[in-house]
This record gives sequence, C-alpha cells and structure tokens, in this order.
Amino acid sequence: MKLTTQDIISFKGLTNEDVEKIFSEADKFEKIAKGEKPSELLKGKILGTLFFEPSTRTKLSFKSAIQRLGGSTIGFSRPEVSSVAKGETLADTIRTVEKYCDAIVLRHPQMGSAKLAAEVSKIPILNAGDGAGHHPTQTLLDLYSIRKNFGSIRDLQIGLLGDLKYGRTVHSLAYAASRFENKLYVISPEGLEMPNEIVNDLKNKGREIIESYDLKEVLPKLDVLYVTRIQKERFSDASEYNKVKDSYKINLELLESAKSNMRVLHPLPRIDEIEPEVDSSKYAKYFDQVFNGVVVRMALLSLLM
Amino acid sequence: MKLTTQDIISFKGLTNEDVEKIFSEADKFEKIAKGEKPSELLKGKILGTLFFEPSTRTKLSFKSAIQRLGGSTIGFSRPEVSSVAKGETLADTIRTVEKYCDAIVLRHPQMGSAKLAAEVSKIPILNAGDGAGHHPTQTLLDLYSIRKNFGSIRDLQIGLLGDLKYGRTVHSLAYAASRFENKLYVISPEGLEMPNEIVNDLKNKGREIIESYDLKEVLPKLDVLYVTRIQKERFSDASEYNKVKDSYKINLELLESAKSNMRVLHPLPRIDEIEPEVDSSKYAKYFDQVFNGVVVRMALLSLLM
Amino acid sequence: MKLTTQDIISFKGLTNEDVEKIFSEADKFEKIAKGEKPSELLKGKILGTLFFEPSTRTKLSFKSAIQRLGGSTIGFSRPEVSSVAKGETLADTIRTVEKYCDAIVLRHPQMGSAKLAAEVSKIPILNAGDGAGHHPTQTLLDLYSIRKNFGSIRDLQIGLLGDLKYGRTVHSLAYAASRFENKLYVISPEGLEMPNEIVNDLKNKGREIIESYDLKEVLPKLDVLYVTRIQKERFSDASEYNKVKDSYKINLELLESAKSNMRVLHPLPRIDEIEPEVDSSKYAKYFDQVFNGVVVRMALLSLLM
Repeated sequence: MKLTTQDIISFKGLTNEDVEKIFSEADKFEKIAKGEKPSELLKGKILGTLFFEPSTRTKLSFKSAIQRLGGSTIGFSRPEVSSVAKGETLADTIRTVEKYCDAIVLRHPQMGSAKLAAEVSKIPILNAGDGAGHHPTQTLLDLYSIRKNFGSIRDLQIGLLGDLKYGRTVHSLAYAASRFENKLYVISPEGLEMPNEIVNDLKNKGREIIESYDLKEVLPKLDVLYVTRIQKERFSDASEYNKVKDSYKINLELLESAKSNMRVLHPLPRIDEIEPEVDSSKYAKYFDQVFNGVVVRMALLSLLM
Repeated sequence: MKLTTQDIISFKGLTNEDVEKIFSEADKFEKIAKGEKPSELLKGKILGTLFFEPSTRTKLSFKSAIQRLGGSTIGFSRPEVSSVAKGETLADTIRTVEKYCDAIVLRHPQMGSAKLAAEVSKIPILNAGDGAGHHPTQTLLDLYSIRKNFGSIRDLQIGLLGDLKYGRTVHSLAYAASRFENKLYVISPEGLEMPNEIVNDLKNKGREIIESYDLKEVLPKLDVLYVTRIQKERFSDASEYNKVKDSYKINLELLESAKSNMRVLHPLPRIDEIEPEVDSSKYAKYFDQVFNGVVVRMALLSLLM
Repeated sequence: MKLTTQDIISFKGLTNEDVEKIFSEADKFEKIAKGEKPSELLKGKILGTLFFEPSTRTKLSFKSAIQRLGGSTIGFSRPEVSSVAKGETLADTIRTVEKYCDAIVLRHPQMGSAKLAAEVSKIPILNAGDGAGHHPTQTLLDLYSIRKNFGSIRDLQIGLLGDLKYGRTVHSLAYAASRFENKLYVISPEGLEMPNEIVNDLKNKGREIIESYDLKEVLPKLDVLYVTRIQKERFSDASEYNKVKDSYKINLELLESAKSNMRVLHPLPRIDEIEPEVDSSKYAKYFDQVFNGVVVRMALLSLLM
C-alpha cells in the first residue's frame, strides 16, 4: 500500500485515494499512539526534524508519531545554530541531513521551500509549513477529525470561522473539505473575509460555498464549526476590533442553537475565542484533534518510510 | 505495587509507605541505570519534559531514567518557542501535550503550577520544581542517598549546612528527613537561618531540630552533612560575606574531626563550598548522589507509567 | 577487538592499527546507517552530547550514529542553560553527566578541554572539537572517505586547498594523511599558507609535502582534492581577496585537467568555493563524505561503549 507521491508538500498533491489510504492507516494506530502497546514498525528508522522557525506543537506531534512506532529523531529548531548561519543553502542542508536519516519534516518561513527540498532530496520530505504556503499535515488531521466524529468526510455542512483572510489553515481546509462534497460556510468579520480568488476558484470548480458575517444565523445548520483566532493586530483601529470580537466568541449559550451532534474544532493554541466552559461539553473536540494529529502523522510516516 | 497518588507534586503528598516502595523499586534498577543491561520495561512509552525554565541537570536525569527503561522523551526547554509565547494557558498546554505522551515532568517558575497541571491532566504529572514551591524528586534522591550509605533513613544525625533561608532543597529535606525519626542540625551564618516557621512547625510536630552557627562544634556528631551554597548576593555588604564564608567551607582538615563513616552530600552544582581535595575522600558522596537521582526517577516512572 | 585508548582526544593518540580497526568496523555498518536494517548493538546505551558551542552537523552525525545502533542521547547545545552558567567547572560537569550515560561527546571552545575531561571521566570521552585543538572524528572521516574511494589510504597524491593557515581541519589531515605514505600538496593564496612549523615538522619526519600557490598546475597530479573555504575576513583589504578568490574556485571547466578518477572532498558547509554544477559530476564526493562520518562514528561508539 503506497501513496502516489513520495513527498507530502501540499494537500493538493494527494489524490482522494491517497487521503483515504492515510486515514485507514491512521485508524490502526490508535492503541499504539496511546502508549497501550509498543510498536517496532519503524525500529532503527530516523526522522529528521528541521525547524527553521519554531512550531513546538507540530514538532512534538511528529516526534511522538515516530517514537510511538519505534523510531527516533534528529534535528534542530533554531537555524541560528546550524550551518545555515554560515551561509549554507537549503539545498545543501537537505543533501547533508538526508545522510543522517530516512525522512525529513521541514518547517521553513519561505514559501516553496518544501518543494525545493523535495527536488534535491532522495528521501521523503514532509512539509510542516512553508511560510504562507502549505501545511498539509494540519489539513489532513483536520479532515481526519471530521471523519472520526461523523464516520465520513462527505456531505457535511462545515463552517469556517474567524480570520479567513490571513489564515493558511482555513484556506487549505476550504479546498480540502470542498473536494469531498461538503457544503462550506465561511464566516468572518468584515475585512477578514476568505479571499475572493479562493471563493471564486471554489465556485468555478462547482463547489458549494456560502459567505456570511453572522455566526448566529449559520450555526444551527452546521455539522462542524472550525474556529480560528481573530487577531487584534489585523484591525486598523481598536474600536473596530471591539465591535466584532464578541460575535465570534464561542460559549455555551451560543451553542444552545447548534445541532446536538455539531462538533467544534480548532487548530490551537486557543486564546479566548472559545470559552473554557465549552471544553467539557459534548461539542468540544479540539483536544481530541491534537491526538488525531499524532495518528495521522504515524500513518504518513509508516506509508512513506 | 502502586503508589497512593498518580502525581508527584510534593514530598508531603507521599506516605512513608510510598517512599519505601519507591526506594525498594529504585534498588532494582542499579544495573540498568549503569548501562550494564538493557530494559524494555517502558518500551513504547513517552515522557513529556516541559521545562518552562532551564534545569539541565534535572532534565538530563529524567531523560536518562526513561531512556534506560526503553522509553523516550518529547518536550521543550524554552517557553519562548512554544505556544505559551502566543498566550496559551498552562492548562491548555497540558491538555495538548498529554495527547503526545504518557507522563509529564513539569518545571515551571510559578508556585502551584504542578498542582494545577495535575488537576487538568489525565496522565501523571511529576513536579520538577515549581518556583519557591516543591521539588520532590530532589528530596527523594537526597533521602535515598542517605539510605544507600547507611542502610536506613532512620535514627541518624543529619546536618543541613549553608543558606537555609532561601534554599528550597533544604526546607523540603528538613521536613522529609525529620519524618523518619532523624535528628536535624541546621547550621548557617547569621541572617541565613532556617525560617522560624519551619523550625517551629517541626518542633510542634515533636521532631528533633537543633540550630547552630558553628559547624566545627556540630560536625563530630553528624552521620550526614548536607552542604548547600552560600551566595554572596544574599549579603547586604561584601565584608559580612567575607567574614563567614570560610567557616562554611568543607576541606580535609575540617573533616578530620568527623566520624569515620560520616558522609557529605550536596545537591550540586558545587562552586567553592567543598574543596576539590574532598572529592576523592571516603566522605564525598555527592557525585554518587547524582546517580541515585537516576534510579529514583526510574522507580517513579516505572510505578506511575 | 579493542582500541589502544579508551578516549578519542586527537588523531595523534591513535595508532595506525587503531585507525585500521576503526575503518574495518565502519565498513560493517553501511546498511544499518542507511536504515536498511535495525541494530540492537548499543540498545540501552546512552551517549552524552555536551556541546558548549554549536556544531549542528557534528551533533546530528553522532546522534544518527548512536540511534542507528539502538542507543539514544542526552545532552545540551547551549552552555548558558546548563549548570556551567552557575559557575560549575568542566570537571564537575563531566563527573555529573557521566552518571547519566555511557560515553560523552564533547565540543568545547577551549583547547585542551577534551583531554581534561578524559582525565576526570570514568567513561569514554570523544573530542568533537576543542577550540584551536583537535577534531579527530573529522580527520577519521576524511581519511575513511579517501579509503572508500581508492580502496586504500596509502601512496596517493593528496591536495589540500584553501585557507591552510587557520583551518584546524587541514592541519590535522596533513599530519594524518602523511602518516600513511601519501604525498601532500598544500595549495593556498599568499598569506594563508600552511604554517611553517607544520610544514617543517612534517619534512623533518621524512614526509613528502609540496607547497604551491597554483591550483591549475598541481591539479593534474592529484588523486584527491580536499577543498576548504577562503574567508573574505582573513584578508586585510577586499582587493586582495578579489584578486585570489577565483583561482581557488572549483568548477567543471577547471576539473577537465584532473585525472578521471580524481575525487573532490570538502568538510562542509560549502559556500561558493565549489560551484553547484560540480555536485552531480563523478568528482564530487563531499556529500558521501557526510554519510561516511556516520559509519565512522558508529565504529568508534561500537568499539568504545
């Protein structure tokens, strides 16, 4: 069982069959990911974790994934201490590090860096974020979390909430979720709407996407509400921010109007866009989503390494 | 064989039976801790090491402990690169990281943080220091070192030397050691005495504690001398410091008046409060104490994970 | 099969028989180093990696080596977060860390530090660079790379190119390579020549060493060209640098005059002293050299631990 690609650069680079394969594989790893039984599947294998900018959560998730499968990691999380500081090119860093390991997870501030790395590398490259570019393992875990809660990633009403203008995560998820016949609701304050080119591109592809400023109105229709943070810094003046912020906060009162099996997801970290009182409700699935990130990454590593 | 608690927050939270269990368990791990035989006891298990402030020694000791038992670690040692920097609460960090591992060692500058972490966590929390609060694995290894040298942790004459006012380590050890019918001598310069509330609290509990400024006088009575550093910065003027510092320095000449089986311990790092000439004497047990820290932590991990 | 030393402090401290033993051992680890089969040779063993100054490449190489053999690492790469920051001596750090592991790789800015560490340590010390002192595993991997390309480390014409005045790597390699009846050509710009005391010392030992400023003239004679970087900062004025830099750049046109089985090595990172067009030519062996560093270090660890 192989994927159609040896590198995971973007969600777009995966076929629907690839996605289904990854998810079926992920299902098998639940017990191992919980530490309930040890695995030797990737014994002796080494994953390189090259983080040219910090991303603790993603790094820990990948480390947990490979270690649960009996493998280990090498890497760095501070470019200033690596040869990069001496002026080495990314291509040379990759050609060097590939001699130490069997696959590389790359986080790099520059768009296109993961693709470049894959071009020079003989071992699989997994993109863990390349600037404003892609972060496909996040999209995969988001989608897998939907599948785990609904048994399917098709024919659902999915709301994307928050800063839809700058959020790479929601752009990728919009493309990914709509590929599987879901209906999208994109809900944001004025000025932070999902970019027109994305909305139009999706519509041209014949996908269902509805734009809204009104969470209260849309909420009762949703199966999934994917919440992201609205950063104060995005607004030109504070009064604009204060006007809108409370309309996009999730609390138990608001959730009364949701379907009983509606589920809330969030890429985390969460600041104050979801009230802590929601955490223990049936709606909250954002911490389980963290765990899903581990099994999805285990699936990718087991398929690629 | 289980402890009465799933978290190690303070020494106080352990019963005497817990302590005995941990020590008996630790005895079993000597060969494994020395790398003389491999263990698979915690194979597939992952320990999260969350160090919100640096503590290299404690971190390396915990890493050695889990790795000797066949497990591995994930974690960070710089909060500035974690989601914390984005404003995430400690509770959310714990709820996230617990999805990646099977137990968490937490070092955090804020008193009470370990207790808070244990309240939200589904997996065991081991407090590796919470500001001016507790550092129970240090106390356990100190006590275990005494046991290893005397075959018992009871009915000994134990001297605590140095800065007894600010030293969290000696406060915990005073409570812990006196719980096992030992007689305590607390020896410090003026101004750095063991706080009155601790001395009185111990006396009220019926424990034996004797205060002194004169190491030379007390030394011949002692079975154990636990040395800690006196920091120059604690004195209002340098002349005060210079007056006292030499009375609290351990050298071979001073040790001539000690019992032949007296043992010197120190939490390390040592600066100049023990002369290097002492290191190779029969009295010096502070580097063995480092090793004891590993087996004690192996015992804790094996009992909790 | 043992070495004549328990520590690897300098190449000079190894006999020719030691070197041959290390290389024979390294040959065995090729498949394991490529992740093609797992090994349990050092299962349960821990390597301490104490990097008092950054050296990502060396650290990753050692980590890969021990992990490929089933062992693991503990360590630090920033002295400021260790007990050293509190004023601990290197001797005390070593006596502490040796309780956590089975061998220590030490990188330290001070010349002689590795020797000092070996004097106090009960476990093997591997010097990974001590300031202007030695870096013996680099020399071993350089020599092993020559052996791998020519089946022998004897009777070859070896050119050392670049900054030969300040380069620790080329000084060590000059001594090491000439010990095995090779003929050395030392090629540098004026002002960056191999130091006279080294050249004279080698000549007095009866070894063949030829000095040159003219790469073009020497190149056709060489079996090996070992390239190092010429740093602009070494020149008093920029015009001096600009005058020479192009005469020491390796490109395909230049290589037309080389023997067909001539091989180019480089300790990396490479900046612009070798043109990227050379990378895919038969001459380029500098990335394979990185891999050789892993098997050589595996050999050392397996012989010492």
